Amino acid sequence: MMLSDPSVKYRPFVAVDLPDRRWPDARITRPPLWCSVDMRDGNQALIDPMDMERKRRFFEMLVEIGFKEIEVGFPSASQIDFDYVRELIDNDLVPDDVTIQVLTQARPHLIERTFEALKGAKRAIVHVYNATDPLFRRVVFNVDKPECIKIACDATAQIKQLMADNPETDWTFQYSPELFTSTEMDFAVEIVEAVMDTYGPTVDKPMIVNLPATVEVATPNNYADQIEWFCRHVKNRDSLIVSVHPHNDRGTGVAAAELAVMAGADRVEGTLFGNGERTGNVDIVTLAMNLYTQGVHPGLDFSNITPIMREVEYCNQLPVHPRHPYVGDLVFTAFSGSHQDAIKKGMAERRQNPDDMWAVPYLPIDPLDVGRSYEAVIRVNSQSGKGGVSYLLESEHGIELPRRLSIEFSQVVQEVAERTGKEITSQMIFQAFADEYLEATSPYALINHRLSSEPDSPRIHLEAVIEDAGQRKTIAGEGNGPLASFIKALAANGIEAEIIDYHEHARGQGADAEAIAYVEVRVGNKAVFGVGLDQSITSASMKAVMSALNRHQAANQPAAPNVTADTLA
Amino acid sequence: MMLSDPSVKYRPFVAVDLPDRRWPDARITRPPLWCSVDMRDGNQALIDPMDMERKRRFFEMLVEIGFKEIEVGFPSASQIDFDYVRELIDNDLVPDDVTIQVLTQARPHLIERTFEALKGAKRAIVHVYNATDPLFRRVVFNVDKPECIKIACDATAQIKQLMADNPETDWTFQYSPELFTSTEMDFAVEIVEAVMDTYGPTVDKPMIVNLPATVEVATPNNYADQIEWFCRHVKNRDSLIVSVHPHNDRGTGVAAAELAVMAGADRVEGTLFGNGERTGNVDIVTLAMNLYTQGVHPGLDFSNITPIMREVEYCNQLPVHPRHPYVGDLVFTAFSGSHQDAIKKGMAERRQNPDDMWAVPYLPIDPLDVGRSYEAVIRVNSQSGKGGVSYLLESEHGIELPRRLSIEFSQVVQEVAERTGKEITSQMIFQAFADEYLEATSPYALINHRLSSEPDSPRIHLEAVIEDAGQRKTIAGEGNGPLASFIKALAANGIEAEIIDYHEHARGQGADAEAIAYVEVRVGNKAVFGVGLDQSITSASMKAVMSALNRHQAANQPAAPNVTADTLA
Repeated sequence: MMLSDPSVKYRPFVAVDLPDRRWPDARITRPPLWCSVDMRDGNQALIDPMDMERKRRFFEMLVEIGFKEIEVGFPSASQIDFDYVRELIDNDLVPDDVTIQVLTQARPHLIERTFEALKGAKRAIVHVYNATDPLFRRVVFNVDKPECIKIACDATAQIKQLMADNPETDWTFQYSPELFTSTEMDFAVEIVEAVMDTYGPTVDKPMIVNLPATVEVATPNNYADQIEWFCRHVKNRDSLIVSVHPHNDRGTGVAAAELAVMAGADRVEGTLFGNGERTGNVDIVTLAMNLYTQGVHPGLDFSNITPIMREVEYCNQLPVHPRHPYVGDLVFTAFSGSHQDAIKKGMAERRQNPDDMWAVPYLPIDPLDVGRSYEAVIRVNSQSGKGGVSYLLESEHGIELPRRLSIEFSQVVQEVAERTGKEITSQMIFQAFADEYLEATSPYALINHRLSSEPDSPRIHLEAVIEDAGQRKTIAGEGNGPLASFIKALAANGIEAEIIDYHEHARGQGADAEAIAYVEVRVGNKAVFGVGLDQSITSASMKAVMSALNRHQAANQPAAPNVTADTLA
Repeated sequence: MMLSDPSVKYRPFVAVDLPDRRWPDARITRPPLWCSVDMRDGNQALIDPMDMERKRRFFEMLVEIGFKEIEVGFPSASQIDFDYVRELIDNDLVPDDVTIQVLTQARPHLIERTFEALKGAKRAIVHVYNATDPLFRRVVFNVDKPECIKIACDATAQIKQLMADNPETDWTFQYSPELFTSTEMDFAVEIVEAVMDTYGPTVDKPMIVNLPATVEVATPNNYADQIEWFCRHVKNRDSLIVSVHPHNDRGTGVAAAELAVMAGADRVEGTLFGNGERTGNVDIVTLAMNLYTQGVHPGLDFSNITPIMREVEYCNQLPVHPRHPYVGDLVFTAFSGSHQDAIKKGMAERRQNPDDMWAVPYLPIDPLDVGRSYEAVIRVNSQSGKGGVSYLLESEHGIELPRRLSIEFSQVVQEVAERTGKEITSQMIFQAFADEYLEATSPYALINHRLSSEPDSPRIHLEAVIEDAGQRKTIAGEGNGPLASFIKALAANGIEAEIIDYHEHARGQGADAEAIAYVEVRVGNKAVFGVGLDQSITSASMKAVMSALNRHQAANQPAAPNVTADTLA
């Protein structure tokens, strides 16, 4: 074994002493309060953090799903978060039954700035944290326990005052002892009680105390023991909303949240599909659907889960794994014959007795309940079985979309799905693709072209016949390659286009092979995609440019009255 | 909420009655026996099941990691599994300290066939199962409890006899009551005891009883309760090796395995990175490394985890998620400034006291212990931070490998890694790529080319000057596009090549933009990739063909004495 001896390097987790724990006998009979931290904890862990447009889309989706508490950012640490919070408030974008939450460190100027961001909000949760973990106290902040408590209480007092100074907002206060799981339990209770003494929560106006497993450090039963221990030891438990915030470093974040709720937690902070720092935050989709399969309505709507997955993939620019519970492309597919047979028999019986409780072999949930289909379950290589617009276009139509184009096109498909209200077949996807890109053949069309070049010269001369709003024109240009010379020829005729990106590949093999080209073209200050299909790799690429130009015109038509002569030149 | 009321459709799991459970106070102080079921349960859930070559590679890797029990297939259900088991035995490929395991249903002819597959094995585990779950008994098999027991005992008796008839093999017997978790607990004990009575396990020669959570149906504490209940109620517990086999339908497979081991399980069946039916089997890598971080050596070697991930991705043709514990591309990366700062301070302290127990903020494990690096931890956009050969080539060098080529090239990189024994930098990856594909410029090279076409004709005429082993030649051809005409021109000069696949895209933007083309070419009966880079999209594609032809020649050179004149024609 090349793995070195861990016993001299890693300390086993020291369990809390709770031999009379009660949580293993508990059952979850109602959902916890859900708080999405996608836009803060999730966003800060992205390779490409969300821009304003993605933030807007994500927030709208969370509201539609039914989240009532949404952590929207860390406005004192990030200008874009600050601007986004202002936009939400200034444009009145937060529904009356939704509360936004923002995070701040326990530092005076950051707290000031946080209240600037929240000025005028109808309701808001101010979430302050400081590090209570002994390693952080010693190594990172060099504070002793009283100093640590003072940081928390000073911040609490400042926040309490700022809340009083801004009575137009309905405030909720939230405190997190950071890395709760590796904090001494008695100190965690001590600091939370000191904060409570400063803030003064009541049964009618409770505060939230959030107990994060910022890093998962032990088997999930230990987190449950800690939560139960805390709930049994803290004073005035009924003036607190106890919240948990599990991460997934040991792959047991979902279990930790579930056992913690059994142990007394009232509220769970997490993200859709488990995005977040390192291994991610706990996945609220899985938690919600786990409850659902036990007969408990989660209060969140994942009845059409695939578009939610697509939207999250778009906003996070990260994939959801094909084996992700309840949503992955492969989770409603049975490959093994014996599984298929058992499912078939179970489905047949269900058709006989449709009102019975759900009981179909190998299917812990009815796929219909999350917007997937029965057929998809056992049909190998079927659409929903492996889902994904890109996958289907590739596997069934030989079209491999470049990544940015696939994101754009998934929106086209989503619109078709919403318009038709039906499950989208692979043929419908191809048709939408053809309509959107390949049939964009007016006003510009390529009729034919001729290339020539001289030996020992890298220059290519192109002469092409194009159609421009019904008129045939011959254009000519020279460049380092056929595509470059085509762009030059267009420019010489007043048609401006700059190639931003270009992809091309073969579709099919042998005599039937065609080339499909994808270009992203800049026209004016707008980027637009086009696609061309032809037996010749050069004709395909030129057609793709025409497709982009035509789509650009189509997109600008409704706005035509506002477009100046300049931009249309 | 569009999700319909689940209380009328889903029955909550009925917990086993075990108020005096002991497992929550248990600690895991030594690893369970590990059994990899990648090549059976994992393989049967793949879109493209492993061919013989991938099976060979996977088995060798499992042996190297240190697995001593490996389920290699279901030979009575699959000819390729049968052939593979024969290959292992006939070619003596199983190390002396490794036991292969095969699965069979409890049906006489399948058991016969299973023993044919195993004939001559040094040691083997025969793993038989039948469905004991009440839903399966009723809906799928239409048997009552005594009939169900008879199926299990008849199979056991037949296996016992066949073992006695083939004494050259050191046999172990394994029985699984299928869907143990949804079987009535008393019936599970009853059927296992009946099987034990038939087989006769002893303390010295125990049998394995495997208690699968074939479908995960409840929070993981319930599985632990069931395992503890079973272990406390079954007779002659010390003549049994109790095995668990968790799946991950609720996202808590890892937790279920850990709590089950705390509850008394001796053995865990699972897969690398959690591949398997639907949401997958439990992930043994996470289980092993979770133990490791608690100071317990797992007895498996994941000290260089990245190449293992790559190899599994290659064999399974499925990705490992970037947030997968201990291995995902993003798990040793900190994006947030406060995390980076804390890690930096922790690392600095560790350098002062390198022999202390591991304690660095936000890092539950020293990345070095799994072959990752310190630097990678906090350097955003660094190599190891986001790992992956394809990712680096794309993000740092603008090269987007087609999928099949990326698989081929990852092997090239792996060889470089093994040869140099160092962490591979992005520059080394690019150099390896250039050496392998772009520098394949001999014997064939493109000197220049000239294209011409006539208006209204799709035909392209090409004239090109090429170098063939130092000799300049002018070649000419005509086709539907430049690439087709180039292939024709080569063919007219006795150079046979057929385009199987072709991709091309822009690298860079504006004046500096180049095109990079990737072709997969068939020469004789072999497929080979080539890559070309040029400012012109046509020159790049032709250079790619030359690169493929040159690589084909290089690959065949060592074998030259065995190649007939025909294949080189």
